[in-house]
Amino acid sequence: MVERFDDLILGMRFKSPEKRVTREEIKRFASEFDPQGYHLDEAAAERSVFGGLVASGWHTAAIAMRLAVETRPFGPHPLLGLGVDELRWLAPVRPDDVVRLEGEVVELTPSRSKPQGIARVKWTAFNQRGEPVYTFIPIAIVPRRPA
Amino acid sequence: MVERFDDLILGMRFKSPEKRVTREEIKRFASEFDPQGYHLDEAAAERSVFGGLVASGWHTAAIAMRLAVETRPFGPHPLLGLGVDELRWLAPVRPDDVVRLEGEVVELTPSRSKPQGIARVKWTAFNQRGEPVYTFIPIAIVPRRPA
Repeated sequence: MVERFDDLILGMRFKSPEKRVTREEIKRFASEFDPQGYHLDEAAAERSVFGGLVASGWHTAAIAMRLAVETRPFGPHPLLGLGVDELRWLAPVRPDDVVRLEGEVVELTPSRSKPQGIARVKWTAFNQRGEPVYTFIPIAIVPRRPA
Repeated sequence: MVERFDDLILGMRFKSPEKRVTREEIKRFASEFDPQGYHLDEAAAERSVFGGLVASGWHTAAIAMRLAVETRPFGPHPLLGLGVDELRWLAPVRPDDVVRLEGEVVELTPSRSKPQGIARVKWTAFNQRGEPVYTFIPIAIVPRRPA
């Protein structure tokens, strides 16, 4: 079981629970944070490049964070990030899609000065058809085991 | 006034409205998307590295999207992104902080095959003390003027 940075191994993989994304959630998030037609209004969404209502990419990102937190890749330690690299939206998330995350440890860099390390996990969100919809690589700080 | 990709110029700058971030909003976002102690609970936050309640980084990201939408950098066209590069959280956002965005066009790449281009705007969010708290570079698709 992972408890510290020291327990992480390159290539280690994680799987999250699932989350169904509802039409109401898509509109509620968009009305607060991304008020654009294809996230808010069915008629406008039909006429858009998406051909129907889609979740804000930032809503997908927020849902992915929730799933990553539930996955507990660093055991008891929080997901504490300096930033994110290679954030990409690959396909739209639509009402009633069911999203889940898979993660893979792609880089581990111990700190030279502090009892911690930087872990990069590449997370990919898939929908219920197994299509990748979103991917991101957070830069996380994880404590090391006391020497 | 910017109406199309053709109207954008490298170095062009944008300024957003302001947004005050409340304690209630921080907890509400965190309870749905990032349920970790330092975003949800004052006592846990006091004991954390942040020394007090802070907004989820994804909440800051969502607020920044809202401010970018309100800024209308591409005139009548939506903010439609393929992804984001160089997303970094530089400082915590705390209850009652007032956040605003500044943007600068840093890259413009016309499509070879479609009547559109890729615009990269580097957005930086500042708090009420002028400290940068968050930065991100979305990869946006913007239509070109018909030939």
